[in-house]
Amino acid sequence: MPQFRKDPVNGRWVIVNMETPRVDFHLPKHASSTKTCPFCPGNEAMTPPAIMTYPAKNPAESKSAWQLRVIPNKFPALRIEESAERTGIGIYDRIGGFGAHEVIIESPDHHRDIADLSPADAELILRVYRDRCLDLRKDKRIHFILIFKNQGWDAGASLEHPHSQLIGLPIVPSRLLGEVRGSADHFAQTERCIHCDMLDQEKLDKKLTIFSNDDFMAITPFASRFPFEVWILPKNHAHSFDSITDEKLPGLASALQATLRKLKKLLGNPAYNFMIYTSPIHGREAKSFHWHIEVIPHLTEVAGFELGTGFYLNPTPAELAAEQLRSVEGEMS
Amino acid sequence: MPQFRKDPVNGRWVIVNMETPRVDFHLPKHASSTKTCPFCPGNEAMTPPAIMTYPAKNPAESKSAWQLRVIPNKFPALRIEESAERTGIGIYDRIGGFGAHEVIIESPDHHRDIADLSPADAELILRVYRDRCLDLRKDKRIHFILIFKNQGWDAGASLEHPHSQLIGLPIVPSRLLGEVRGSADHFAQTERCIHCDMLDQEKLDKKLTIFSNDDFMAITPFASRFPFEVWILPKNHAHSFDSITDEKLPGLASALQATLRKLKKLLGNPAYNFMIYTSPIHGREAKSFHWHIEVIPHLTEVAGFELGTGFYLNPTPAELAAEQLRSVEGEMS
Repeated sequence: MPQFRKDPVNGRWVIVNMETPRVDFHLPKHASSTKTCPFCPGNEAMTPPAIMTYPAKNPAESKSAWQLRVIPNKFPALRIEESAERTGIGIYDRIGGFGAHEVIIESPDHHRDIADLSPADAELILRVYRDRCLDLRKDKRIHFILIFKNQGWDAGASLEHPHSQLIGLPIVPSRLLGEVRGSADHFAQTERCIHCDMLDQEKLDKKLTIFSNDDFMAITPFASRFPFEVWILPKNHAHSFDSITDEKLPGLASALQATLRKLKKLLGNPAYNFMIYTSPIHGREAKSFHWHIEVIPHLTEVAGFELGTGFYLNPTPAELAAEQLRSVEGEMS
Repeated sequence: MPQFRKDPVNGRWVIVNMETPRVDFHLPKHASSTKTCPFCPGNEAMTPPAIMTYPAKNPAESKSAWQLRVIPNKFPALRIEESAERTGIGIYDRIGGFGAHEVIIESPDHHRDIADLSPADAELILRVYRDRCLDLRKDKRIHFILIFKNQGWDAGASLEHPHSQLIGLPIVPSRLLGEVRGSADHFAQTERCIHCDMLDQEKLDKKLTIFSNDDFMAITPFASRFPFEVWILPKNHAHSFDSITDEKLPGLASALQATLRKLKKLLGNPAYNFMIYTSPIHGREAKSFHWHIEVIPHLTEVAGFELGTGFYLNPTPAELAAEQLRSVEGEMS
């Protein structure tokens, strides 16, 4: 069973795989083919049974009966069946590996990422993210849900077929707590949201914006950690991603697709990660927090300085990254 | 000039390169040759003038007049000539790019890493680390010094010739502050050092040790973030790396070389990072902190989950990594 382990000095938690531990790292990064891909249509039996399946709109015209599948991770970091019991070994703390770990197979097409899908198909992915969050909220043991995507081997993907992941945790991660606390402190001082202030300042400065529509803005944040890091924020304050209405989903899909297309064009299809930052749930809800998506192309390595300090060294100022990203089209080519 | 920028939400600092910003990431990772390597003997004019040069013991028998050079980084993240002035842009905070950024060219040999050097040559590297710290301590504006090494492209090295780096910062990084606070809290409760407690528990358990001599122990920490992560700790409590005496340097060199050789043999010469964690300086000194070296082979990518939560997913339990590392020799082969 998986296990949470706590560093006794700084309190940082680690999830450790106890069941299928890995000791051999000699394997080359393999190129997968659609024949052996467990996420391709026809290979459904290679995955655990689906939690949800969304049928194809025109199955007769499509090679696949489905447009999107949500499945439990076959090699889960955490499991809903585990207990969240805390135990000690001498000075060390452990928690049982309770949690949710799901995979969203974003489309039947092995070779088309979110950037390349139709607006409706991209919107479906975001709707499913929201609906899975709303469903998992019912389990009162889950205090935080992270939705994230690793696209490309260099960004940590282990399968090529475009997919994203959802992890529901019994603990609120320290990084999120830090942001929640920062937002709450600013609100206590000013009765304003710090992210809303950032957007207001940017509406005047216009140096960091790369895309904007009625409901969403995509910016390169002032203190970007990574070259060409982009954040997508709702223009109106909202603390929880899963409160997004059906009406606003097309605008979010459009902002995400434009961002990914711009990165793809400018940087030559880089590997990337994105993460949806949203408020904790169940009594830890933080109404002064402003949910957003962080998109990080994988262009440099996290190295000794970053590992050692938690600081980042960024060779590309945000305003320069924004200028470059504005210069390429975000439309489907 | 370089610039520190602060994220207004979570307070995280980033160092941004304003002078030689990078926008082109299409360049392939290049294999460097000894002819064009700025760190090889004969090419000294390609680097800034050395801060210190250690002569070769037998220059007549050696291809190089020097055994080790310390130079200012040619593309420094920070500069000692900059001011540490704080300025604001609306809601955002900036600090001028004051700091030290030095490169330690570990030996004249382009192809021999620390693991492959003679014990005396490895010891010299550690002595130089200490002496540079003692020298930079004299500048009261520097509050923290990180020594780190990126070995291999995948670990973020930009040049192949074995080298390490030193960065002196006007701020104590939040990650270090967290460890300092954790150590101080434990000491306040127990009047004991938390790292000494870890070593005491390990002396009984013996599950995590991979190497031990009179003064140093190398262990895989219980809450390892990464597969085959190793920490090297002095057995007797000491808060500051630069307090190490000449008598103890050979033992530290031996522990570091044995660790690197074991990783090399077991994992097929992986890229790796190491960082020396030591107490802040100048009034922020933390006597309950226990200095140590963290060695991290680069086997997996930091991906969306880690970026999103600050949590880590580790596929290899520490005790299993230790068992495997004990099974290979740490002697020079």
